[in-house]
Amino acid sequence: MPDNDRFTRGLARLSAIDGEGGHKVIDSLADIAPDFGRYIVEFGFGDVYSRPGLAPRDRQLVTIGSLTSMGGCEPQLEVHVNAALNVGLTPAEIVEAIMHAAVYSGFPRGLNAMFTAKKVFAERGLLPLV
Amino acid sequence: MPDNDRFTRGLARLSAIDGEGGHKVIDSLADIAPDFGRYIVEFGFGDVYSRPGLAPRDRQLVTIGSLTSMGGCEPQLEVHVNAALNVGLTPAEIVEAIMHAAVYSGFPRGLNAMFTAKKVFAERGLLPLV
Amino acid sequence: MPDNDRFTRGLARLSAIDGEGGHKVIDSLADIAPDFGRYIVEFGFGDVYSRPGLAPRDRQLVTIGSLTSMGGCEPQLEVHVNAALNVGLTPAEIVEAIMHAAVYSGFPRGLNAMFTAKKVFAERGLLPLV
Amino acid sequence: MPDNDRFTRGLARLSAIDGEGGHKVIDSLADIAPDFGRYIVEFGFGDVYSRPGLAPRDRQLVTIGSLTSMGGCEPQLEVHVNAALNVGLTPAEIVEAIMHAAVYSGFPRGLNAMFTAKKVFAERGLLPLV
Amino acid sequence: MPDNDRFTRGLARLSAIDGEGGHKVIDSLADIAPDFGRYIVEFGFGDVYSRPGLAPRDRQLVTIGSLTSMGGCEPQLEVHVNAALNVGLTPAEIVEAIMHAAVYSGFPRGLNAMFTAKKVFAERGLLPLV
Amino acid sequence: MPDNDRFTRGLARLSAIDGEGGHKVIDSLADIAPDFGRYIVEFGFGDVYSRPGLAPRDRQLVTIGSLTSMGGCEPQLEVHVNAALNVGLTPAEIVEAIMHAAVYSGFPRGLNAMFTAKKVFAERGLLPLV
Repeated sequence: MPDNDRFTRGLARLSAIDGEGGHKVIDSLADIAPDFGRYIVEFGFGDVYSRPGLAPRDRQLVTIGSLTSMGGCEPQLEVHVNAALNVGLTPAEIVEAIMHAAVYSGFPRGLNAMFTAKKVFAERGLLPLV
Repeated sequence: MPDNDRFTRGLARLSAIDGEGGHKVIDSLADIAPDFGRYIVEFGFGDVYSRPGLAPRDRQLVTIGSLTSMGGCEPQLEVHVNAALNVGLTPAEIVEAIMHAAVYSGFPRGLNAMFTAKKVFAERGLLPLV
Repeated sequence: MPDNDRFTRGLARLSAIDGEGGHKVIDSLADIAPDFGRYIVEFGFGDVYSRPGLAPRDRQLVTIGSLTSMGGCEPQLEVHVNAALNVGLTPAEIVEAIMHAAVYSGFPRGLNAMFTAKKVFAERGLLPLV
Repeated sequence: MPDNDRFTRGLARLSAIDGEGGHKVIDSLADIAPDFGRYIVEFGFGDVYSRPGLAPRDRQLVTIGSLTSMGGCEPQLEVHVNAALNVGLTPAEIVEAIMHAAVYSGFPRGLNAMFTAKKVFAERGLLPLV
Repeated sequence: MPDNDRFTRGLARLSAIDGEGGHKVIDSLADIAPDFGRYIVEFGFGDVYSRPGLAPRDRQLVTIGSLTSMGGCEPQLEVHVNAALNVGLTPAEIVEAIMHAAVYSGFPRGLNAMFTAKKVFAERGLLPLV
Repeated sequence: MPDNDRFTRGLARLSAIDGEGGHKVIDSLADIAPDFGRYIVEFGFGDVYSRPGLAPRDRQLVTIGSLTSMGGCEPQLEVHVNAALNVGLTPAEIVEAIMHAAVYSGFPRGLNAMFTAKKVFAERGLLPLV
């Protein structure tokens, strides 16, 4: 494993935000593309996520908008619904963000994201929400 | 023009958030699909944007994540970079949100969004940012 | 559950077109985002699907083109292949529509849609088609 | 130019459906990728468009759903809004199809498609529609 | 099954490149859309893949870039990671191509592709890579 | 401007591959998001493009597949058609790669990419190709 400031800072960020789910992703790259995992940590978390210009909570709102509307990113959205909870977004706010994104990318993208959130909320004992 | 609560509430929201840019979009639908404009006002703004669960500033963070990562939505992003400024996001925060979204959807989507923001910032006399 | 014209009209439309599959989607939102389900019924079905300007059969042709080409919407396509059959499109016409959409969005999107249709046709005892 | 049944049949289809706009696309490929133009004629029109299983009008409904929801296909949508008019869809039905697709792919995709249709309708003297 | 040069040539190409995985796809279309399978063989493999202008190895690099960045094409990517190995790309080169594509389409698309490659590599006894 | 190995290495790579077009992109970020430009240089070129595992020519094949199939990336594709020529791909091979990608993402994405290549080829006096 690399020993540099960006990696160390990134790994601390990844732990604080994505928690176990983020580490699992990096670990599962170990036998095929460890450098890809390193780039995610260094660039994604050590560079971008570590910037002070936007609070962790704000970054997860952007992330939810992004992953919901791209489609086909359910595994990553699962990690980031957990991340969103970890940095203080409430389940109701996450639901609200997904609904909001669906105005821009349509009901199917919104539904797929909502059912991913539902799975995470269920695992964390947060359902029913209403 | 329809006279109902959702439309009235939506139009007020549209004015407050998207401002002139939003009205131009609705107006330009008048001779081809006025009902489509009405739905955008009623559902988009009267229903979703009017919900109390997420602050206007938060909604624009989700919107920027969504529009940046979908690609091909530069005209809508232009409206919403203006909207983001209108509801209190600083230019630096908007730049930060676009950079953050690019981690998820790649540099080309990020660049297209950034140059759209640059155009809006230039029109509003906000450049150089740094 | 809301009691208004748009919702009532939308629910009737949803029942007539999407049938059980559509209701399952709305029901599965009950414990996380019932308002999202309500919007799908009110706006999607009460507003748009209820418009007289395009026959139900025509709307499902547009829907199949849309969902096939977006990608990542297999769960929604499953509901709407059923819907297409419910409003009178034949299995052969549905296959034809998916093949046609693949000219525009490529073979992978076409294949994913075709195998979704195959699953629905198998469940309804409609295979082999040829 | 190739001389085979698929090409001859495809060119006749292209002329009947896409008209001048379709020929311009093929012609503009002549000095860079004539074979790509030939494949569009042979496979797209000689094979798929020539199949009897779906009427020309139905095929344009699928096409509009597909191109609206993919995003970034405004030049192709311009050709196919013309094509849709050529095969008997009314301007109002085209508007309706775009609005319908927007339920699935969101307002931005719908707006971009609507303004493309507006451009075509204006060129053909069909505005105002309402 | 059709008997023409394009089909014969395409089937030979499909066998040489995609191998068993490609044939399975075509076979699974037999009871629902055999013509769709025929088009994939004739146009995809008999026309495009048979062109001398780009080596098989080069074509799989383009394919990996394409399928990784579109998203939602994991089943097709699975076939083509196998195809890439069949035409002489090493596992390390495939990993490299996916990482490269992720610069353009973001980490989530890259991760989904990487885990698809990992599945194929595991099935072929090629792990650990490093 | 930062002074570190990754940036220096990346800038040299960017110059060698993307040439003037790449520098223009980075320069145009200077007054709005210089750090975004720095990340493109450091991560995109200093990290990924500098890896020995895939030749520059191979990387541009992946890039063309990626950008063609994503859609809405015409400005970036313009830079990278130039880059492809710079690293030794012939115009005919670039055309071939775009045609190949169109099998996976459909004719509209292929056409938009082809017309972008045509613009670059014209600027460099490379037309007609055939």
